[in-house]
Amino acid sequence: MNGAETLVHTLAEGGIEICFGNPGTSEMHFVAALDREPRLRGVLCLQEGVVAGAADGYARMAGKPAATLLHLGPGFANAVSFLHNARKAGQGIVNIVGDHAISHAQYRQAPLTSDILGICAPVSDWLHRSASPLDVATDGARALQAARAGQIATLVLPADCAWDAALAPAKPLPDIAPKIADAATIARIADALKSGKRSALLLRGRCLEREGVEIAGRIARATGARLFHDYFTPRITRGAGLPRVGRMPYFAEEILEFLGGLEQIVLVGAPPPVSFFAYPGLPGWMTPAGCELLTLAAPGDDTVGALAALAGALHAQTTGETVTRIIPDAPPDVPLTADAMGAIMARLLPANAILSDDSLTTGPGLQKYLADAPAHDAVFLTGGAIGDATPMAVGAAIACPDRKVIAVSGDGAAMYSLPALWTMAREKLDVLVIVCANRSYNILNIELARVGAEAGPKTLAMLDLGNPELDFVKLAQGLGVPATSATTSTDFAAQFADAMQTKGPRLIEAVIRV
Amino acid sequence: MNGAETLVHTLAEGGIEICFGNPGTSEMHFVAALDREPRLRGVLCLQEGVVAGAADGYARMAGKPAATLLHLGPGFANAVSFLHNARKAGQGIVNIVGDHAISHAQYRQAPLTSDILGICAPVSDWLHRSASPLDVATDGARALQAARAGQIATLVLPADCAWDAALAPAKPLPDIAPKIADAATIARIADALKSGKRSALLLRGRCLEREGVEIAGRIARATGARLFHDYFTPRITRGAGLPRVGRMPYFAEEILEFLGGLEQIVLVGAPPPVSFFAYPGLPGWMTPAGCELLTLAAPGDDTVGALAALAGALHAQTTGETVTRIIPDAPPDVPLTADAMGAIMARLLPANAILSDDSLTTGPGLQKYLADAPAHDAVFLTGGAIGDATPMAVGAAIACPDRKVIAVSGDGAAMYSLPALWTMAREKLDVLVIVCANRSYNILNIELARVGAEAGPKTLAMLDLGNPELDFVKLAQGLGVPATSATTSTDFAAQFADAMQTKGPRLIEAVIRV
Repeated sequence: MNGAETLVHTLAEGGIEICFGNPGTSEMHFVAALDREPRLRGVLCLQEGVVAGAADGYARMAGKPAATLLHLGPGFANAVSFLHNARKAGQGIVNIVGDHAISHAQYRQAPLTSDILGICAPVSDWLHRSASPLDVATDGARALQAARAGQIATLVLPADCAWDAALAPAKPLPDIAPKIADAATIARIADALKSGKRSALLLRGRCLEREGVEIAGRIARATGARLFHDYFTPRITRGAGLPRVGRMPYFAEEILEFLGGLEQIVLVGAPPPVSFFAYPGLPGWMTPAGCELLTLAAPGDDTVGALAALAGALHAQTTGETVTRIIPDAPPDVPLTADAMGAIMARLLPANAILSDDSLTTGPGLQKYLADAPAHDAVFLTGGAIGDATPMAVGAAIACPDRKVIAVSGDGAAMYSLPALWTMAREKLDVLVIVCANRSYNILNIELARVGAEAGPKTLAMLDLGNPELDFVKLAQGLGVPATSATTSTDFAAQFADAMQTKGPRLIEAVIRV
Repeated sequence: MNGAETLVHTLAEGGIEICFGNPGTSEMHFVAALDREPRLRGVLCLQEGVVAGAADGYARMAGKPAATLLHLGPGFANAVSFLHNARKAGQGIVNIVGDHAISHAQYRQAPLTSDILGICAPVSDWLHRSASPLDVATDGARALQAARAGQIATLVLPADCAWDAALAPAKPLPDIAPKIADAATIARIADALKSGKRSALLLRGRCLEREGVEIAGRIARATGARLFHDYFTPRITRGAGLPRVGRMPYFAEEILEFLGGLEQIVLVGAPPPVSFFAYPGLPGWMTPAGCELLTLAAPGDDTVGALAALAGALHAQTTGETVTRIIPDAPPDVPLTADAMGAIMARLLPANAILSDDSLTTGPGLQKYLADAPAHDAVFLTGGAIGDATPMAVGAAIACPDRKVIAVSGDGAAMYSLPALWTMAREKLDVLVIVCANRSYNILNIELARVGAEAGPKTLAMLDLGNPELDFVKLAQGLGVPATSATTSTDFAAQFADAMQTKGPRLIEAVIRV
């Protein structure tokens, strides 16, 4: 058994089922070892951004990490932006990064020699380079332990440590139990919520899945506290039958209004709210003056357990008000708008769907309808590196093969990760991709004025995606995914309805000109 | 004048004409400043890999740096792999990386807050974050000085340093003169070359452009030394009328044979040769035992000046033998092969073309014909991060608008940088892209056996690009570039001839099944 084989068996024994990868020569022994481990499935992606985004989406929906396989420093570098998103989302991933054989890494002039640890470090919570084939299995077990605790764990695997003889796989290490609030904290926050002050719970992490949302609903019912989540939250289970958790707005002045009047905010797995960007003359810190921040659970803590303990202390046993499904009217036959799309999607969304959304200017129009749709999971762009809606949909569909996945991306964002479509076709994933084609980086047209930049024609040209127009139907077909274009609400309704009735990958180019 | 305006004017005053960019909110003031600086042209790319590859290709052909504009840590991260290639090629680039306003960077929970200096450092020779709008112009002048000396210079520009008031642009700093070999070194190497030992010159850098190659030819003629260059050399001017500079092979055992028998190698801007990867049982160090290495010029030194001094010391005034153009026979009508492609391209290549090649398994078939084609420049994949042939072609075409540019990429490689095609269409660049579609990561099929990995069906599936087949005609059309597919030598000859006769972007999918 060589080093690579001990690693692959160790990962499988620890519960890793999927390895998203884009291998090269230095990873050939790891790839070959997959042939001798039936519990571990390799999923080929044609660019490392897709690898990382898919691992992120998988972790969000599977509740456990996948592995990735990346090719030296440059291969890892291509994954960094979506690993950044995953890290902001608190999702664990085991990155296996092939490196030159130890004897070869001394040659700085070899094309692929790089400061590989330097490239990996800024987005890795756990980072190690194996020094011997005999260490690879235990290194892998340590990486997996870190990833199962929600960390980005990166193991650099020199080619000779993969190909040289090793002993045996390593036993999985025990899971690290997340921290949970102590009784004094629970009592203090319970008292605070009974004080009559205007209160809210800001939720993030596992507590935004069904169990946590239902407990939070009981707390809201018992105390009158509002529930809300970050604009870009890693995952939320929401919709009909679940307590409503409001979405904090995107723009700073809207957040200030949304939070205005609150006297205390209980943080449940969430950091204090700040704005996405700074703007001249506006604060970045969004907590209203005089509003107290109380931490029930820090990011990474046991948020569901803490909510359950808090509900117990409050004797909050009554189910709160839940969302009633609203079936919007079918829009008239009009040129397509975000609102029309949202209404149509909310009418037709199947129960238990998964929505992956990184659309910046179309998204708000959709979301206001979808919050009242049948219960579903939504995953959002947590780290600001646009284009991860489609890779995350790949991972979500592999984690949940029986659920319909819908990815919604802007045209600018979709161009970051086109190769994700090919993996959808190859793996026959049940994903509908909707590209909201407004032919511009429209968010920047809005932001230009907000930051006070004086735009002339050269500026506006740098935000324009219409010269030439991207044809997402051809792009999808070129990657093996059937596709259609919709320019009216009637087109879109028919195409969306058809996509909901059929299985397999599909793309709709939603042309939005208004 | 705000900080961004002082920076843009400083860069333009220092000779920067092009800024390849993919901006976001934090870069809006820099973009707006372009409207007030007619000497600086913004070129929009839809992914940061294209930005970096284009800046690399521009520098190789313009002989001076371009600027890039990147969006915080994740935007820079997407550029890292092709910046790695550029750095290996010794090409200077000025990266401007927008960052949060200084007051906002303290908020680690903001989605786009990252360890931005940590992300930039591994591929930056020069790295600085501006601390005040008053410093931005002088920081920019320092970055430009570093880039003009062949360095990757990265200036992190906080949004408030861009939008706040500043004073004036900064004057360009003087160029740093490259080192040149001293008289004793010249004399020692001249003596060595007259010793009668079997000798070769390994050339890299500016000395592989016309002037240097011609001087090297005189030295070869006077001393009997062979001339050769790295397999992946940044740029070489070659072909009919120029002295022949041999290309070192790719695989280790072929390199050993190629260098076998040499008693001394003079390094001219090149590091000692090593293999691309390590292989079990093969050395990575490629200099034959007992062969002496003599350094005439280190990487980054004045290679042309050193060669001229050496030629003077050797009284090497006679032009050496030059390449005679060979017009290969037109291949018969056969299913397309790399050899047929190479013969056709060598028959029809216009004078003074630029070839950008990152094809790994098709490339050698082409190159053996193209070395005897009309004189042209070739640029190669220097850092092993595949997919830069098309972005480099963007940069080369912008640097040299009157020359035909031909990019040759494998299908696996081309998938890394599809958005480059859109910039070609938008800027109406005179580029023919040839995608060598063998429907696999074919280099890995070869490498599997060479590294001794035992491949089963799961392994082979991870190297297969045929399920589903990529349709590069549709992909190109989707990005605004006219395209055709060629499966026979006759198809390819007709399509290539047509492309050479017409201006503007064009793609040929060269389907190679053998």
